Amino acid sequence: MDYITLAHGAGGVEMLELLEKLIFKRVDDKLKRVEGGVGIDIADDAAAIPLPDGRYVVVSVDSYTVNPIFFPGGDIGVLAASGSINDVLMLGGKPIAMLDTIIVEEGFPVKDLEAVIESMLKVLREENVALIGGDFKVMPRGQVDKIVISTTAIGISDNPIIDKPAPGDKIFVSDYVGDHGAVILLMQMGLGRDIEEISTGMLRSDVKPLTKLMVPLLSKYRYCVNAARDPTRGGLAGVLNEWAEKNELLIYISEDKVPIREPVKRYSEMLGIDPLYLASEGVAVLSLKPECADEVVEYAKKLGFGNSRIIGEVKQTDMFKGYVAAETSIGGLRLVEPPRGEIVPRIC
Amino acid sequence: MDYITLAHGAGGVEMLELLEKLIFKRVDDKLKRVEGGVGIDIADDAAAIPLPDGRYVVVSVDSYTVNPIFFPGGDIGVLAASGSINDVLMLGGKPIAMLDTIIVEEGFPVKDLEAVIESMLKVLREENVALIGGDFKVMPRGQVDKIVISTTAIGISDNPIIDKPAPGDKIFVSDYVGDHGAVILLMQMGLGRDIEEISTGMLRSDVKPLTKLMVPLLSKYRYCVNAARDPTRGGLAGVLNEWAEKNELLIYISEDKVPIREPVKRYSEMLGIDPLYLASEGVAVLSLKPECADEVVEYAKKLGFGNSRIIGEVKQTDMFKGYVAAETSIGGLRLVEPPRGEIVPRIC
Repeated sequence: MDYITLAHGAGGVEMLELLEKLIFKRVDDKLKRVEGGVGIDIADDAAAIPLPDGRYVVVSVDSYTVNPIFFPGGDIGVLAASGSINDVLMLGGKPIAMLDTIIVEEGFPVKDLEAVIESMLKVLREENVALIGGDFKVMPRGQVDKIVISTTAIGISDNPIIDKPAPGDKIFVSDYVGDHGAVILLMQMGLGRDIEEISTGMLRSDVKPLTKLMVPLLSKYRYCVNAARDPTRGGLAGVLNEWAEKNELLIYISEDKVPIREPVKRYSEMLGIDPLYLASEGVAVLSLKPECADEVVEYAKKLGFGNSRIIGEVKQTDMFKGYVAAETSIGGLRLVEPPRGEIVPRIC
Repeated sequence: MDYITLAHGAGGVEMLELLEKLIFKRVDDKLKRVEGGVGIDIADDAAAIPLPDGRYVVVSVDSYTVNPIFFPGGDIGVLAASGSINDVLMLGGKPIAMLDTIIVEEGFPVKDLEAVIESMLKVLREENVALIGGDFKVMPRGQVDKIVISTTAIGISDNPIIDKPAPGDKIFVSDYVGDHGAVILLMQMGLGRDIEEISTGMLRSDVKPLTKLMVPLLSKYRYCVNAARDPTRGGLAGVLNEWAEKNELLIYISEDKVPIREPVKRYSEMLGIDPLYLASEGVAVLSLKPECADEVVEYAKKLGFGNSRIIGEVKQTDMFKGYVAAETSIGGLRLVEPPRGEIVPRIC
């Protein structure tokens, strides 16, 4: 491991190993969180800092390098605003404020920058999230490809969700998975606009904030949610493997029940890719207590997330601890490995 | 203004105009801050969010693109940790936590990444600041130059400093200015190691956190501080012009009193650059009430900032509202214009 490879940035096994070696194991235990809060010992997507009144400030940062920067269904501005908002939501926070850093290549068209910023601000307006600060830098031509954005989202939570799936839990997804990953992959291959499903708008990135789902759902069913994540880099396979491994549980899903759009299935098959590894940017995956899981599905549907469903469950076993297994459509069983290597660079 | 230029990222006039047009004027007034806090209507370096107990969470974000990434006196890791910590301090916060995003070029040596991260973690350890979250991405070869880091620093403040220099105030600097800018400029020109002052360590970046100055100083003299900034991009000239312009005051300094190291003076002269525009990364500039200014200087010296001094004052005038004037060493007077154009790209 002498040089950084694309796989180190793919959110899979190689990245976790690298960050463990270079960061996590070097941070003193007491500096892994603010006392009483949530830090890198528990999650790396977002963190929580306790407030004097018993609530928490939830903070999330992410950098966005997506290529192309304008894609069917969105652009890097929508993605940068939505992605960090979603990380705050998944930790159980209600987003209230954002800060951004924008790095642009010299020679970048001002009208494109304007469009990207307007997309970002539109999300913030709709979400009623304040833009409270930021930074802007320009790098000389050739030293950065077009534009890179990072966003910090800040929210407030009564009760942060510390992912802890339990045996018996039902695995919930709020929508079709893999749309964002499939679209970016097809665009990067230069196929984008030639594909009928893309030109007709049937297939496009699912990028969106999940506030309209998560805030009402948590206010009513917080007690039911044992874990919450949005399956970005590494896809559904990534989230489920992390949950299974950290908690030494088996997660068992039915492939038939995982909602995947027909064109995503078809192009994945053509390209030899498993859609369970493709990123979504507007989907929630929850681990729900079994007694209230069906109620949550119904409530999510009422909130406008009509494709919500249960796709599997969490099991305690002696064998297959830490694994994800999928029942295939022909009735067999396969292991869904943790993400490894790089399917799509600059997916987000 | 059809394409982004380096000047747009230099922290001067062009950048303020661009951000005004593309961001500030497009954000609804009510979304420029969290209610009762500090947001982009007041400062863009850092923001404050009110807490239920009357205190504030102070947050700052910055991206770091410095070139070269290793330089005399520091590296991009020290800079990324110190820079955002300093922004929190300058708003009157005590830093408690940090999040980072790291974007690396494919093929970057792992040992260099290790060195940069270790530098960052060393600052956090010394500062007792927790690393509570982050993000890591890799861009394909040629799509980003080596490494770009952004950091979010979070602190707590009893009483955020909303920059408001008042007529009669004394202008304080805690140390020599322009060291960081001069070193980066010389390195970028390929002169770095050939220069005796650099190879002997006499001249090096001043990058460091200012916690040991600002936390005790504010706990004793908060009432005396009307404004606080660290003069990074745009240098001392940038900070003073911003204060003068926003408050319609004249800021008057004596060139002889501004502490500038002899080699910084000499190389600036050779290169035709005014050192008042060169960035510092470990210097505080304060606007102090006149009755306690001398006491603050003495106290700063006791805290180990032996070069602290008063370099000028704030005046209310009918003429020259919004200007910065410097008395030159031969007794004349010159206007110190706001920073314009780009002196050193990728300075921080």
